[in-house]
Amino acid sequence: MNNNLLVGQSGGPTAVINGSLYGVVSEGLDNPAIGQVIGMVNGIEGFLNGRMMAMEPLRENGELEYIRTTPGSFLGSCRYKLPEDLSDPVYPKLFEMFSENKIGYFFYIGGNDSMDTVSKLSRYAASIGSDIKIIGVPKTIDNDLVETDHTPGFASAAKYVASTVREIAVDASVYDNKQSVTIVEIMGRHAGWLTAASVLARKFEGDNPVLIYLPEVAFDTDAFINKVKEKLQSCNNLVVCISEGINDGKGTFICELASDVGVDNFGHKMLTGSGKYLENLVKEKLGIKVRSVELNVSQRCSSSCLSATDLDEAVGSGRYAVKAALEGETGKMITFIRKSSAPYKVEFGTADVALICNMEKPVPLTWITEDGSDIGEEFIAYAAPLLMGKVDVPLENGLPRFAYRK
Amino acid sequence: MNNNLLVGQSGGPTAVINGSLYGVVSEGLDNPAIGQVIGMVNGIEGFLNGRMMAMEPLRENGELEYIRTTPGSFLGSCRYKLPEDLSDPVYPKLFEMFSENKIGYFFYIGGNDSMDTVSKLSRYAASIGSDIKIIGVPKTIDNDLVETDHTPGFASAAKYVASTVREIAVDASVYDNKQSVTIVEIMGRHAGWLTAASVLARKFEGDNPVLIYLPEVAFDTDAFINKVKEKLQSCNNLVVCISEGINDGKGTFICELASDVGVDNFGHKMLTGSGKYLENLVKEKLGIKVRSVELNVSQRCSSSCLSATDLDEAVGSGRYAVKAALEGETGKMITFIRKSSAPYKVEFGTADVALICNMEKPVPLTWITEDGSDIGEEFIAYAAPLLMGKVDVPLENGLPRFAYRK
Repeated sequence: MNNNLLVGQSGGPTAVINGSLYGVVSEGLDNPAIGQVIGMVNGIEGFLNGRMMAMEPLRENGELEYIRTTPGSFLGSCRYKLPEDLSDPVYPKLFEMFSENKIGYFFYIGGNDSMDTVSKLSRYAASIGSDIKIIGVPKTIDNDLVETDHTPGFASAAKYVASTVREIAVDASVYDNKQSVTIVEIMGRHAGWLTAASVLARKFEGDNPVLIYLPEVAFDTDAFINKVKEKLQSCNNLVVCISEGINDGKGTFICELASDVGVDNFGHKMLTGSGKYLENLVKEKLGIKVRSVELNVSQRCSSSCLSATDLDEAVGSGRYAVKAALEGETGKMITFIRKSSAPYKVEFGTADVALICNMEKPVPLTWITEDGSDIGEEFIAYAAPLLMGKVDVPLENGLPRFAYRK
Repeated sequence: MNNNLLVGQSGGPTAVINGSLYGVVSEGLDNPAIGQVIGMVNGIEGFLNGRMMAMEPLRENGELEYIRTTPGSFLGSCRYKLPEDLSDPVYPKLFEMFSENKIGYFFYIGGNDSMDTVSKLSRYAASIGSDIKIIGVPKTIDNDLVETDHTPGFASAAKYVASTVREIAVDASVYDNKQSVTIVEIMGRHAGWLTAASVLARKFEGDNPVLIYLPEVAFDTDAFINKVKEKLQSCNNLVVCISEGINDGKGTFICELASDVGVDNFGHKMLTGSGKYLENLVKEKLGIKVRSVELNVSQRCSSSCLSATDLDEAVGSGRYAVKAALEGETGKMITFIRKSSAPYKVEFGTADVALICNMEKPVPLTWITEDGSDIGEEFIAYAAPLLMGKVDVPLENGLPRFAYRK
């Protein structure tokens, strides 16, 4: 009987994707119905090259507990798309390898593209009558998966964004006798969930960030400059949060307006972010002190702002995935079903992964103010509970102690 | 008898400059020899415009405790240079205002430029026979003040840098089956202390950051590319830390090599950081995946990586400053005298502020490896103890609760 468990991670990392791994592995090791627990190194791509590791020794040597609070993908990641054509020889090869390794349960932790892998593998399994259970465990800081209230990774990234924007606002206001504009560029090419979370930094009406722009609403540079001018009347040190993906609504990203501007001395186009572009625009149009800050990869890999809610849910969804598979579910992604926001209450569920892969969930337009420059109360009610709770990351010599494959 | 206390903050903020303020204010309120405790709003510039606030109410309403862990300059800052000519009318004006407010003790929390203010005011005081005691309390993330082992603000910034670089290294290694280079640009125009602190992220020999470049050593772009090529042989995902101020040793910053490269559509020069410049260089010369990350203002304003050692010393130096003034010292800056590194032991002292202002302390060349691409053991022994200890910042709704002037 094939009852070994195979687990992998795929796509961009988050601060709690290893929390989900910890959940799958812990449940796998705890549950007597599971045989060995095997990790794919570098996802399905690495597995195809025979890269696997036994997970049980990590519990024995104590590393597993560190995995729980280690950002990044402990098992390594990949960006590998399985062929659309299920008659491609990679599929029988994979299932032969599953068979060799006595795999009965397959878990893939990832976002959109990873769910595409789960969908293809489960469809192929059905077509050959394999009884391997194939389950997706969601993660993405973008929070753009459909069929689920939210995704693990979003809340910790949101907490990082809100905390950091609050600190940047403090920093921006030290010369509060002089006018200034600070533009903060936040990750999110197509969906503005993470940028919207910057509203949680605001402590009272009129507090920073005063303006917030998401990719869901067409961005107009003239309207933006007028808004900045207007808001400077009541706030001397304006903080503006923008999504990296703000666009004109006709398919052109704002950052692209600048990208054909200059070439460097190697002949490369100077790639400028949307923040840098708007920094130059404000300088040109208003002639006041302006800077832009790109929050960058720390949004997805900082361990300093872990949400306990997020981490607990990541671990819980990993454990739930194993239980669902043992109950016979396959071709599903674990979902989060919100029962109540105040008090916050969530339950796990499953949804057909075919409904999820390659779909994107934008921020509802009704959660954005009419002129597209701010976020409404509905979003705050939705997002605020997700940030609750503090995680103490183990330290060594004053610095976070992470788990490593070695 | 003039026994009121006047305190202000000046220059760029740090994560613990308010810790120093908390120390001065607490000691001022506790010490029966001090009358009222008055804050200058926006430093000496704001004071000249009559901007002051009473500090005692902040203890009564509980805000003072929050000030201790709030980044940025609670009192607001300024960049105002007093005239070199002590016969300028601003000096009698200031001392008349001191007299009107019954100021007997003047404390200025800041870096180099602020110590220049302390020096000028104390020299003017001596010239007119004023007995106001004028004391500087050091702060700077740059750690470049002379006559002191280190400065408050550096350790928390160093802890932020080391933690964040460790996290970026984790993030950079998730696709560890593909080669990549990540360049991290760290604050420090002239002194490389903060960039050097990135070495503390390293867990074992050969671990990231593999290469570290400071402004103290002339930067050669050809040697850099060769070094990157060499290190990629043993480390697939290379993290390189550079100071924003790396330069060719002849007065040209590396970032300036790119700055006349292009103009944007407003006719502005595209200002590119050193990290961006080297990113393009690596792309051009080696053709591999490369990105650059600018750590930006969070280095000086993040409250998530406060060092308890740093914060305690900031508070202690503020308290010590008040005691030193009451013992008759003036024209001095509070200094840190290291008695031992293992176990770490430090004492406060004072030094003539005239020896400190307008001077800069670079990282000793003997603490940098011979080829200028790494940091030696001496630095690690020096810096590691400063990062120790964790500070729990008060939270509200999962986010840091800061103090504000209102």
